[in-house]
This record gives sequence, structure tokens and C-alpha cells, in this order.
Amino acid sequence: MPRERTAEEGPVRVATEKIPVSTGPGMQIVDVTAALSERLRALGARSGVATVFVSGSTAALTTVEYEPGLVRDLQELFERLAPQGARYHHEGRWHDGNGHSHVRASLLGPSLSIPVVEGKLTLGTWQQVIFVDFDVPARERELVVQYVGE
Amino acid sequence: MPRERTAEEGPVRVATEKIPVSTGPGMQIVDVTAALSERLRALGARSGVATVFVSGSTAALTTVEYEPGLVRDLQELFERLAPQGARYHHEGRWHDGNGHSHVRASLLGPSLSIPVVEGKLTLGTWQQVIFVDFDVPARERELVVQYVGE
Amino acid sequence: MPRERTAEEGPVRVATEKIPVSTGPGMQIVDVTAALSERLRALGARSGVATVFVSGSTAALTTVEYEPGLVRDLQELFERLAPQGARYHHEGRWHDGNGHSHVRASLLGPSLSIPVVEGKLTLGTWQQVIFVDFDVPARERELVVQYVGE
Repeated sequence: MPRERTAEEGPVRVATEKIPVSTGPGMQIVDVTAALSERLRALGARSGVATVFVSGSTAALTTVEYEPGLVRDLQELFERLAPQGARYHHEGRWHDGNGHSHVRASLLGPSLSIPVVEGKLTLGTWQQVIFVDFDVPARERELVVQYVGE
Repeated sequence: MPRERTAEEGPVRVATEKIPVSTGPGMQIVDVTAALSERLRALGARSGVATVFVSGSTAALTTVEYEPGLVRDLQELFERLAPQGARYHHEGRWHDGNGHSHVRASLLGPSLSIPVVEGKLTLGTWQQVIFVDFDVPARERELVVQYVGE
Repeated sequence: MPRERTAEEGPVRVATEKIPVSTGPGMQIVDVTAALSERLRALGARSGVATVFVSGSTAALTTVEYEPGLVRDLQELFERLAPQGARYHHEGRWHDGNGHSHVRASLLGPSLSIPVVEGKLTLGTWQQVIFVDFDVPARERELVVQYVGE
């Protein structure tokens, strides 16, 4: 059965952007919402999915109400779940002291998919997209943002 | 090199729906599989990706075999990982007693991407999509469902 | 305002593939990166999103630097977070001894979305896609890979 074309439909395209992020040493939580919104605005994104992805195995992505209390709460949560001072078998390979960074990143996960509706990310009022760098030294990172939509 | 067009290919479109969810107080786990399938059926979804997203920072999404025992097991898991009675720095800001709700939601994550094949979500027989509301009071919520596909 | 068509844009399509995975008993971690890359290459994927999804409620997906030390570290992490020997209410229903498998899988999550750029997954050098089977017996599994892109 043929479908009527609705106002929301249109040619779907793919566009890819990068967001560079510099982090200091230790577990760092960076609000990337403004950078992400700016990239999508520049692309003319109206209706579609924004996939955000971390290239690297010691960092991850999620959302949170970004305020100093919750930043500390998340740092303490991951310190309880996978303490930095515990013994990790990963150390036997590289001796770089970041076994905790790897398992924390795997637990939280490298990808996030966020719908864009009428040109805006469908985040809640108190919900920000955060990049979480679990690694030990300061790092220069790059997030991949890929938009599939109209 | 030009590719042949296969039977599976066709015009890809974007369609967005909402699923309202009312939850009671405390950690609530709601099976949204039927509502999600119904929305996709109404859209005529045949082959594509359904992104489900929680707008809000105290709720999350995942899948589970939805039965009363596992509902309690998940409640007890999150009570162990991030106890309600622990001290959270978030309290210093809002004093609304939901620091545990926020960190639990960040840990589980706000988005889920599920392939649709031949008009059906590719869930396992004993796998349901659940909305997990970690907040303390009863809430009126809205999930975003965005379909990109044929 | 009309947009210029850029070199990256083209007809977007949907293609679905399966990856069979055989796992042994106990928590198994399988590197599926090569199988995933091979499927995308066969599809002629150039620019788009690869969604990987586990059909089933006792397995999950994430990324890690795949080496024997981190495989053991992840096994130990999940044994701490949700011990196999703890009491699970799920047992009251099925008596199949895999309550821990279910809650671990829900915590880690069944889906992963990875951008493909210039025909390649945007993984880091030391980042592999892993399928984590948390179930107790050996299983025959099937991953769904769905590509939406050019």
C-alpha cells in the first residue's frame, strides 16, 4: 500500500563532524552539549539522529544534570565500582596504571544516540551530554558526531 | 563502481513519535515494548533503526526479561551500586534527595538503538524494552521514539 | 534556504546482516570487530551508522582494548557488581541459575552505534567491539548489524 508523503519527510543525508576535547589528568567530566548543538546547527539538522561516539578505550559518553555536585558524585561512584588502587590484570601488559580507566569506560559505553526534532536535541531541561575521560594522564581527544536525517 | 539496487533498499525517511509514561514513587521499571511496537506499526516501519531516548536526567532505558523477579533484582542491583541513603554532593544544590537517581540514570544511559527487520523489532523472545524511572516522586514522563528507515 | 549538495551526501539506504557467535559456558568475551568490519565492507558501506544489537536478555555489547588481562578484569568487575553466587528473585521463576546473567546484561546494554567514515568504523587503535555473553551454559548467538548510510 503506498504511503502519503508527510511534511516531516524529506531527503535523508549523512554528515560527520568532529569535536576536539582536551582533558586534564584523572577522571574528567566535560559538558559537550553546546559544541554538539553548534555542529548540528551548522549542518542544518532538522529531524534525525545524532550519534556521538568516542574513539578510544578509556573514555565514554552519557548524560547528566551537569553541576559540580553530580560531577563529584559520578567520580565517587566509579571509584567505588572500579577503584583506581585495585589490582588489574591489564597492568601485566602495559604497566601504565590505567586498568581502572579501561573497565570503567567499557561499563559506561562509547556511544550515544540522540534524536533531533525541529532542529533541536531532545534533551531535558536539566540534561547535558557529557564526555567522561577515565584515563590517568591529560589527553587530547576527538569525538565523532554523525548525523543521519533531514 | 555502481551498485545494484536490492529489494531491501528504498526511500529512507525519518519519523518521530512520543510515548507518555506515568510512574509511581521510587525506582519504577515499566515495560514499553508494546507501546513501541505499536508506534512503529502505525508508522509502517519495515527496515530501519528505532532510537528510543529519555528526555530527563533521572531515568534510563535498557532491555530485560520482564518478570517480577528480575524487576526486584534490578532494583536491588542499583540499590547496591548507588544506595539511596548514601551521601551525594548533588544534595548541596537542590536538597531534593535524588542524588542516587541521577548517578544511576547516568550509569545505565538514556538511549537505546534497536534494528527493525521485516516490520519487527529484533528483540529476543524473552527480551523486553524497559523504561527505568530512578526518581523519588511519581513523574509524568515522555519517551522519544525516532525511526530512520524504510 | 536551499543547501548545496556536498560530496559526502548520496542516497541513504538500510542494509541488515547477522553475525553468528558460538560461546562456551560462563562469562565469555568475544572480539567481533573483524566480523563486523567484513560485513560492512561487503555492503559497500562508506558513510553512515552501524547499529549492533544483541537479540537476547543475557548478553550485551561494548568496546574494550581486547587483550587477555582486560578480559579477566571485566569478568572480575561484573563478578563484583553482580556476583554469580548472590540470591536473585529471578530464580523463583525459572531455577536456571542465571539471575546474575540477566542483571549484568541489562546494566551493560544490548545496543551499540558506531559511525562509519570513509568506509571504516571510527574505532580507536586499541578499541575493539566485544560481544559479552553473561549466560551460564554454552550458547549459539546471533548479532544483528544494521547499517543506515551511503
